[in-house]
Amino acid sequence: MPGKKKSSQRLTISDIARRAGVSTSAVSYALNGKPGVSESTRAHILEIAASLDFAPTAAARMLSQGRSDTVGLVLRRDPRFLANESFFMQLIAGLEIGLAEQGRGLLLQLAKDRESEIATYRRWTSEQRVDGVVLVDFESDDPRVDVVRSIGLPAVAIGDPSLTGDLATAWTDDAAGVRDAVRHLHALGHRAIARIAGGAHFAHVRIRDEAFSAECDRLGVRYAIRHGDFGVALAEQHTRDLLAAGGYSAFVFDSGLTAVNGLRVARSLGVDVPSALSVVGWDDSMLTQVTDPPISVMSYDVVQYGTEAARLLGAVLAGEPPHARLGGTPTLHERGTTAPPPRSADPIG
Amino acid sequence: MPGKKKSSQRLTISDIARRAGVSTSAVSYALNGKPGVSESTRAHILEIAASLDFAPTAAARMLSQGRSDTVGLVLRRDPRFLANESFFMQLIAGLEIGLAEQGRGLLLQLAKDRESEIATYRRWTSEQRVDGVVLVDFESDDPRVDVVRSIGLPAVAIGDPSLTGDLATAWTDDAAGVRDAVRHLHALGHRAIARIAGGAHFAHVRIRDEAFSAECDRLGVRYAIRHGDFGVALAEQHTRDLLAAGGYSAFVFDSGLTAVNGLRVARSLGVDVPSALSVVGWDDSMLTQVTDPPISVMSYDVVQYGTEAARLLGAVLAGEPPHARLGGTPTLHERGTTAPPPRSADPIG
Repeated sequence: MPGKKKSSQRLTISDIARRAGVSTSAVSYALNGKPGVSESTRAHILEIAASLDFAPTAAARMLSQGRSDTVGLVLRRDPRFLANESFFMQLIAGLEIGLAEQGRGLLLQLAKDRESEIATYRRWTSEQRVDGVVLVDFESDDPRVDVVRSIGLPAVAIGDPSLTGDLATAWTDDAAGVRDAVRHLHALGHRAIARIAGGAHFAHVRIRDEAFSAECDRLGVRYAIRHGDFGVALAEQHTRDLLAAGGYSAFVFDSGLTAVNGLRVARSLGVDVPSALSVVGWDDSMLTQVTDPPISVMSYDVVQYGTEAARLLGAVLAGEPPHARLGGTPTLHERGTTAPPPRSADPIG
Repeated sequence: MPGKKKSSQRLTISDIARRAGVSTSAVSYALNGKPGVSESTRAHILEIAASLDFAPTAAARMLSQGRSDTVGLVLRRDPRFLANESFFMQLIAGLEIGLAEQGRGLLLQLAKDRESEIATYRRWTSEQRVDGVVLVDFESDDPRVDVVRSIGLPAVAIGDPSLTGDLATAWTDDAAGVRDAVRHLHALGHRAIARIAGGAHFAHVRIRDEAFSAECDRLGVRYAIRHGDFGVALAEQHTRDLLAAGGYSAFVFDSGLTAVNGLRVARSLGVDVPSALSVVGWDDSMLTQVTDPPISVMSYDVVQYGTEAARLLGAVLAGEPPHARLGGTPTLHERGTTAPPPRSADPIG
């Protein structure tokens, strides 16, 4: 293969054995820290290996040590969507910080659907390509919990502990975040709130749905929930429909991306934010900060969350028992899109 | 290691040899497509292997085939910056699309500085961890051109062909893009334009500098260039300083991130965009579309660019001679931040 490193340039265990005047087995024992050679011989061999700038190939190391120094992440999302959704870039940045501490790299793969995602885990496992994986986007009765256990693939879940079985889990308390948003809007005077949500098949969306409806019921707030897909088009359509139907003075979105586009649609229809409509987004990013007005968001530190998830996986790979670690509780960060409702939009008064 | 797949579950070549009634060498020859076994024996062995659902480990495959089905990308950028800079997420999304076509994954690693970036390439090569790499963020006399050649690491460069030596190169014609922006602003009536640029050590920044000054000179436009670092803080400071000094009716930024923040600073100082100041950004993204007004940008399809770069690397790995491939020419996409200058800000007429 052109440009490929010629294998003739690469030192082998035999070269070291010849130079050290020992057997290749002795070199293997010494390099892998196994018994079978005296300490003085081991030191001699390691010195020779170091002087020759010997680095065992990844393949040889994987065979001898059973580790790849790589962690896998499969994203079952449209690439064009990922390019705009800062949550995943923040998460990946955080994972990289935590993995760098362990000397591990991140193997990133996109998958079209759940089947190909699971096929990737099976392939990575049978080929010993990764030490472990980070799982995201949990659904109810998520099949991946059983899959990674049955194939013996170490994993950390990013999702609610109610969904992730016995996997080590990094999670955020989304329900507490939603309650915070509803309470805050209620305190401003809102009595009718619409939630424009992500895809209903995502379990974290369901968790937010339940917390939202329960808190609205508790406070006597009328509410509506519309499910989309975290993409822009459906969220915009829901925004249009809800504004046309009227009756809700605040819209709570499930992401920053949908919130900024909801804001844009509202303003294009002549609906002033926040005097005529309050808007709340989810996940802070530059995107929600540069609109005019900047968007009030449920925020927590996603980069830090990713770092914690990587550290949790490191702990699992080091042999610690799996446990759940709270990576953050989203709280409402008020910016310019939340205000008391207009009197006419308040059906209770 | 808890959770690790037990090696007792994994089939080995010996299992297949026993089942097929042949030697392990024969199995190895058959599986690796090498001579040494008859065609009927080879077919028999492959059938047995398939019936046992045998997948050779990545380590064994790497040793026998010398490929890892992985492509590496080192980003020498601050993780917190990456979380906000959509260019790289778009590029990564595009790379994933192109690599998926080849059955390859993307190994992503962050590096603190140029030295650790180069150390990563050396390690990946000596450990046979990647089939090749994608290089970004070229500097003048970039040492990586020689490094990847000397260690025999196949690479594709994303950068201007004048900087990337004999490497296969995916590039965009930034100089043509800058000229387009200057001409457009000149046609609107601007006679004094400031360029708020990225870090001067980046070669593509220098290329844009030269095209900018040459085109301004050609058209009789007065100009200033201020270098930052693609971060927000320095670009904001330059925006403040240039507005305080006065004399320029249009600011051309080197990214979308710096442009949206420049817009924010200008408006916070009471400078109306576009009636008092025109603003142009670089690289289109959701970020530049959601501001009010949305930002006029030099745009091309970054996702497609990434896909083309991945395909170019695939061609190199398949043995094609390296060549340069134009991935796009940025052109000014007018939105709401470009307009004729105010009369008082036009020193010529």
